[in-house]
Amino acid sequence: MAADKVALIIGAGDATGGAVARRFAREGYTACVTRRSLDKLQPLLEQIRATGGKAEGFASDARKEEEVVALVEQIESTVGPIEVLVFNIGANVPSSILDETARRYFKVWEMACFGGFLNGREVARRMVARPGDGPKGTIIFTGATASLRGSANFAAFAGAKHALRALAQSMARELGPLGVHVAHVVVDGAIDTEFIRSNFPQRYAMKEHDGILNPEHIADSYWYLHTQPRDAWTHELDLRPWTEKF
Amino acid sequence: MAADKVALIIGAGDATGGAVARRFAREGYTACVTRRSLDKLQPLLEQIRATGGKAEGFASDARKEEEVVALVEQIESTVGPIEVLVFNIGANVPSSILDETARRYFKVWEMACFGGFLNGREVARRMVARPGDGPKGTIIFTGATASLRGSANFAAFAGAKHALRALAQSMARELGPLGVHVAHVVVDGAIDTEFIRSNFPQRYAMKEHDGILNPEHIADSYWYLHTQPRDAWTHELDLRPWTEKF
Amino acid sequence: MAADKVALIIGAGDATGGAVARRFAREGYTACVTRRSLDKLQPLLEQIRATGGKAEGFASDARKEEEVVALVEQIESTVGPIEVLVFNIGANVPSSILDETARRYFKVWEMACFGGFLNGREVARRMVARPGDGPKGTIIFTGATASLRGSANFAAFAGAKHALRALAQSMARELGPLGVHVAHVVVDGAIDTEFIRSNFPQRYAMKEHDGILNPEHIADSYWYLHTQPRDAWTHELDLRPWTEKF
Amino acid sequence: MAADKVALIIGAGDATGGAVARRFAREGYTACVTRRSLDKLQPLLEQIRATGGKAEGFASDARKEEEVVALVEQIESTVGPIEVLVFNIGANVPSSILDETARRYFKVWEMACFGGFLNGREVARRMVARPGDGPKGTIIFTGATASLRGSANFAAFAGAKHALRALAQSMARELGPLGVHVAHVVVDGAIDTEFIRSNFPQRYAMKEHDGILNPEHIADSYWYLHTQPRDAWTHELDLRPWTEKF
Repeated sequence: MAADKVALIIGAGDATGGAVARRFAREGYTACVTRRSLDKLQPLLEQIRATGGKAEGFASDARKEEEVVALVEQIESTVGPIEVLVFNIGANVPSSILDETARRYFKVWEMACFGGFLNGREVARRMVARPGDGPKGTIIFTGATASLRGSANFAAFAGAKHALRALAQSMARELGPLGVHVAHVVVDGAIDTEFIRSNFPQRYAMKEHDGILNPEHIADSYWYLHTQPRDAWTHELDLRPWTEKF
Repeated sequence: MAADKVALIIGAGDATGGAVARRFAREGYTACVTRRSLDKLQPLLEQIRATGGKAEGFASDARKEEEVVALVEQIESTVGPIEVLVFNIGANVPSSILDETARRYFKVWEMACFGGFLNGREVARRMVARPGDGPKGTIIFTGATASLRGSANFAAFAGAKHALRALAQSMARELGPLGVHVAHVVVDGAIDTEFIRSNFPQRYAMKEHDGILNPEHIADSYWYLHTQPRDAWTHELDLRPWTEKF
Repeated sequence: MAADKVALIIGAGDATGGAVARRFAREGYTACVTRRSLDKLQPLLEQIRATGGKAEGFASDARKEEEVVALVEQIESTVGPIEVLVFNIGANVPSSILDETARRYFKVWEMACFGGFLNGREVARRMVARPGDGPKGTIIFTGATASLRGSANFAAFAGAKHALRALAQSMARELGPLGVHVAHVVVDGAIDTEFIRSNFPQRYAMKEHDGILNPEHIADSYWYLHTQPRDAWTHELDLRPWTEKF
Repeated sequence: MAADKVALIIGAGDATGGAVARRFAREGYTACVTRRSLDKLQPLLEQIRATGGKAEGFASDARKEEEVVALVEQIESTVGPIEVLVFNIGANVPSSILDETARRYFKVWEMACFGGFLNGREVARRMVARPGDGPKGTIIFTGATASLRGSANFAAFAGAKHALRALAQSMARELGPLGVHVAHVVVDGAIDTEFIRSNFPQRYAMKEHDGILNPEHIADSYWYLHTQPRDAWTHELDLRPWTEKF
């Protein structure tokens, strides 16, 4: 019988997802991490295992209902009950509204919002069915500045992120009283990633003065949210570097 | 050469869309109204024409890019330049998140948001290309309480409406300085429709004391938005009956 | 017996208050206008009377309860029932938080918020007591960008404006179902005033392209709010020039 | 020379302030706590000292500039540099707007907002002057549901809390880039206090199921905010029991 405590991280490709996986593994969770391609997960799995943690990788397209249903079933039956779900897929592709394509507008929503719905619903179904009176688990959605504001040239990304925030709110209001802690984290600023290093070197130089977000620190806040006792749950918090204009 | 001033109303099936069409027709616009089926538009077209107004009906699926592109091209070439676009399609289907289907979650977004993107983009492309320095046109999106709040059991509708609001904001910020007035109207309360009459008789009884929204009054606010001079544009306003809790 | 319909404008010194007074006078209301000094009201009173309108000036310190009580009593007994109240006093004095004085922080709140409470409460007491089932009157508070956002160096002004917005919301929620329409207008951008002309000439030059707000157009929106039927009331709308970044 | 690390808690009378004092004392800070009357602070001081912590009590009226200036001077010169400021004074007195008195409306603002300004400014002046490149300190303001929403019958409290939130935002935007972490915590729900126990016994009974906020858990979140590294600061978070409707 599967008995490990599981933290499932959807979209463990970028810096934040990987850091969250490491953080929960360090606390004794089996980090179940997904990407579309299993190959790309190997470095993260090895890293976690090398430090004594437990980790399992799964190829799963977050936008495909049957894959998500199968993923959750497989983890629950072969690894253990999912106690934490982190949905961390973004898809920030700016464009003038005049040039935006129907295909891209759809794909941004499909990745950054629809995948959140599918994974969130599927895990929530398991969580609310856990026996007992105690807390039933934590579901965290990664938001962005665009979750709160539709800036020029960001119609697709802001639309997906606004919709994801509505999902988080709606789930929190329904599932909170059933024992599931649903939270939304507004990450406002550049994150220390290879992408920022390569494409925005000036921005990246701010790292020296803590001007970009360290994924490990984002992960700390996710851990903090998970550890909150149920009489004092946070639904939403923001995270930004001290130098970030807002 | 086509020379009528056109107000295009996408989703002229429900009470609000029809009232908006009548309002703009009364002001001398040719009301171009769409639904998926042309048949259902006939009563509205006859009503407008009977009072001396001009109206044209078009069967158009707001979710199909090629249909939207063709619709806008046809109107611009055979009726006249679109000066006003109103996107008015909703799709409010409540459900527990635990029972929500992928198909329904997608369809609600496709109708209430994706259609807004397709029609908004296509009309915006025409508007920004108008010659001259003056105002280039008005685009109004119909919002709802769910545009601002993700209530329990409304994940799909709130997601679509949040995304539509992000679209309206993003378009306003990009297109405002190009002369296009983009506005978002938060309709908060029951509207006087056959649906409310049949399904919520108690609610409908409040009509007697002005407790539900009269579509003609919603239409007045759309007209007001369109007539605002460009030094004092409103991007967002709410509308609710005096007795509505908020 | 006093029988004129009265529109009371608190703070009719700046451009907006004066324009609102003219607008309501044009519609047949007796514009009752206040400032701390009666002298400065004379040009406005003459202007309104010269065009056939009715206007009365009152010296009243909006921050003094006894003056506000006396003002409302005097108008109701000698002019007529107050059907419209517009509170329009601002007090925008930027300062670093490190240099802000207790005296200035208090005075900004006292002018921009406390005066709104005193006048709003006093007029509301009269309005809710009007006989009959119909609408009982309109109360409009003038807001600003700072109503929604606490920017650096604007702690005092943003504090007062946030508090005024809370007042407007609280009054709307309590008094709406009693028949009083309470609205809040977020004016976002420079207004065409002598102050802007003298101090921000570059900004003022945008007037040529409608880049600053015309007070007459702000007044139109106040009139529009007042004329809304009670089944479709707006509680909040924003106003900004088409070129304004937001 | 004074060298202790100081956490200054303004308004350590109610449950939250006391818990925050204990929490920071446990971490090695000297908890400097204030109330208007020194007597009432004794139990808290004894409690902290009994568990090996350091605490100092000060009688200080948070609404009196000269007292606040003297308090901060005294602590900085005799105890140590203030590294943390928590402003925790509330004043929730509901009233219909029609019955609200000028005196009460003013007093609620004076206590819940003006005191926050005085203490916040005075401590900020010290913090920004600390030598070195590192973080300069943390300032936390306690908010409430009324910080975000002006409910019926809460004009005074919502006004003060909205203004306090504007203060927190304005300070965060100005002082963040100078190294001071300014945060605002929205406490949404009943807190486990003697007041709730005596006056709302049914509500208090929810304690058994974690339905009211434990002050120790609120304090944990304040500690968490203080410990965030400066590349990932939270400006605002909410706290509510799992069963709380929102």
